[in-house]
Amino acid sequence: MLSKQITKIVQNLEKKKFREKYNLFKIEGEKLVGELLHSSLKIHTLIAFSSWIEQNKKVLSNVNTIAVDEREMHGISNFQSLPQVIALAEIPDYPYEPEAVADSLSLVLNGIQDPGNLGTILRVADWFGIRHVFCDENCAGIYNPKCVQASMGAVFRVRVFYTKLPEFLYGLKQKNLPVYGTFLNGEDIYKATLSTRGLIVMGNEGKGISKEIEALTDRKLTIPSFAGHAGSTESLNVGVATGIVLSEFKRRID
Amino acid sequence: MLSKQITKIVQNLEKKKFREKYNLFKIEGEKLVGELLHSSLKIHTLIAFSSWIEQNKKVLSNVNTIAVDEREMHGISNFQSLPQVIALAEIPDYPYEPEAVADSLSLVLNGIQDPGNLGTILRVADWFGIRHVFCDENCAGIYNPKCVQASMGAVFRVRVFYTKLPEFLYGLKQKNLPVYGTFLNGEDIYKATLSTRGLIVMGNEGKGISKEIEALTDRKLTIPSFAGHAGSTESLNVGVATGIVLSEFKRRID
Repeated sequence: MLSKQITKIVQNLEKKKFREKYNLFKIEGEKLVGELLHSSLKIHTLIAFSSWIEQNKKVLSNVNTIAVDEREMHGISNFQSLPQVIALAEIPDYPYEPEAVADSLSLVLNGIQDPGNLGTILRVADWFGIRHVFCDENCAGIYNPKCVQASMGAVFRVRVFYTKLPEFLYGLKQKNLPVYGTFLNGEDIYKATLSTRGLIVMGNEGKGISKEIEALTDRKLTIPSFAGHAGSTESLNVGVATGIVLSEFKRRID
Repeated sequence: MLSKQITKIVQNLEKKKFREKYNLFKIEGEKLVGELLHSSLKIHTLIAFSSWIEQNKKVLSNVNTIAVDEREMHGISNFQSLPQVIALAEIPDYPYEPEAVADSLSLVLNGIQDPGNLGTILRVADWFGIRHVFCDENCAGIYNPKCVQASMGAVFRVRVFYTKLPEFLYGLKQKNLPVYGTFLNGEDIYKATLSTRGLIVMGNEGKGISKEIEALTDRKLTIPSFAGHAGSTESLNVGVATGIVLSEFKRRID
C-alpha cells in the first residue's frame, strides 16, 4: 500500500528542487532497477508489484520494499506501459580525487542542456572507461528521469561533479593536464597526437563551447566531415560526437 | 489565411497513413526550412508569419506561400515556442542505382524503432558522406516529425530506401559487396581490416541484428568496451555506435 505522502514524494521527484530537498531520485523499470541493485548506490525504497518482489526476494533482504497495485503504480509512473518496479535511490556524494583525475581522461560538459543527450554521454563515457565527468551549472541535471533513462544505468557508475568550470580547468592546467576542446574548426582528430590523460570538453548543442572555456583549452580538435558537398549536415549530435572522440582517444592506448 | 482543409491536412501529417496518402511531410522551424530550401526536394506549401515571408521573399518566388497569424500557427505546430515557418514538402522517390551502391559504403538499418535514433543516424550518415541508407519495414518512418527534427536536415539529402532486407542483401552479395554487421561479440573494429565499399548493418535498439540478417553478414564487428569493470554499460546507443563505426571506416580512407 502506497501512502499519500510517498505518492506525493515520488511525483515531486520529477522536479530538481524536490530531488535536492529529499536527496533522492527515481528509477523506473526492471532493467534499470536491476542495474541499480548491482551498483554502489543506496536504495531508499522499492515500489513494485508483488510478483516482482516475489521473483527478486533473494536480493531484497535489506531493502525497504512496498507492494502496490496497478492503480497505485499508474499514479507514480511516467511510462506508457506500467513498469514492474520503481526505485527511489539516494543521490551519492562522491569525494573529489584530484590524483585520480590527473592520471586519467575525464569529460567536461559545457552547457549540455538536453537530458537525453546528457544520459547518452554518460552511457558512452561508461563504455569507454571514463570515471569522472565535470558539468557546469548550465548542464541539465543528471538525475532528471530522461537522463537516468538515456544513461541506461551509467548514471549509477560514472562520477559526475557540478562545478564552476573556469576555476576547475585553471586549477588542473597548473598540473600540466592537457585540456582538449571539440570545435568545428580545429585540428583533424584523426591526425592529432592524443594523450592518455587529460580533459575533453564538449560544448552546448547549439552554441558549442563558450568563449570563456575556449580560452582555457590547449588543443582544438575537430571530427572532419566526409560529406564532400555543400549544404551538408553542419554538426554532429553531441552524444555521437562524444562517442567518436572517446573512441579516437581510447583505441590508440592498446 | 489558412483554410480548414489545409489545417486538417497539416495536422494529419503526424500520421504515417496520411503522409503516404498525400505524399507530403511536414518540416517545422526556420533552420530546418532553410535547409529544405537549399535541398533538391519539392516544396508543396510554406506556411509562415508575414515577417518571415517578407525577410525571405527573394528565395520564395516559385513557392506557394500562406501567411498566417499566431492562432493559426498554434493549431498546426508541435513546438513549445511557435516556429516562424512550417513547410510541407513532397516525399521524394529516388531511383535505385545499384552501381553507385556497389561502389560505396552504405548503411543498412534492421529495425531501428525510435524516430529520434533514426534521425540521429541519418545526420551522422550525412556527415560521413554516406549517400544510401536501406531500412526494413520494422524501422520507424523517416518522415516522422521526430526523425526529421533529429536529422537536422540530413533527411533531405541522404537517400533512404525501405526494402525487404534479406532479398536485397542476398542480391548485393552476388556482386562481392561485403556485408558488415555490428554485434557485441564480433571482431575488434579497431584491429579489423575494413573495406572502402560495402554495407554496414546496424540492429534494433534492444535486440540487435535479427538472426535472419545475421546469417547474411560476412564480417561481425564490435566496438570494444574500455570499462574494465563488471556491471558496466552493456551496449552503446545505436546512433552513437553508428557514428563510431562510420568514423572507423572513413578515417582510414584518407
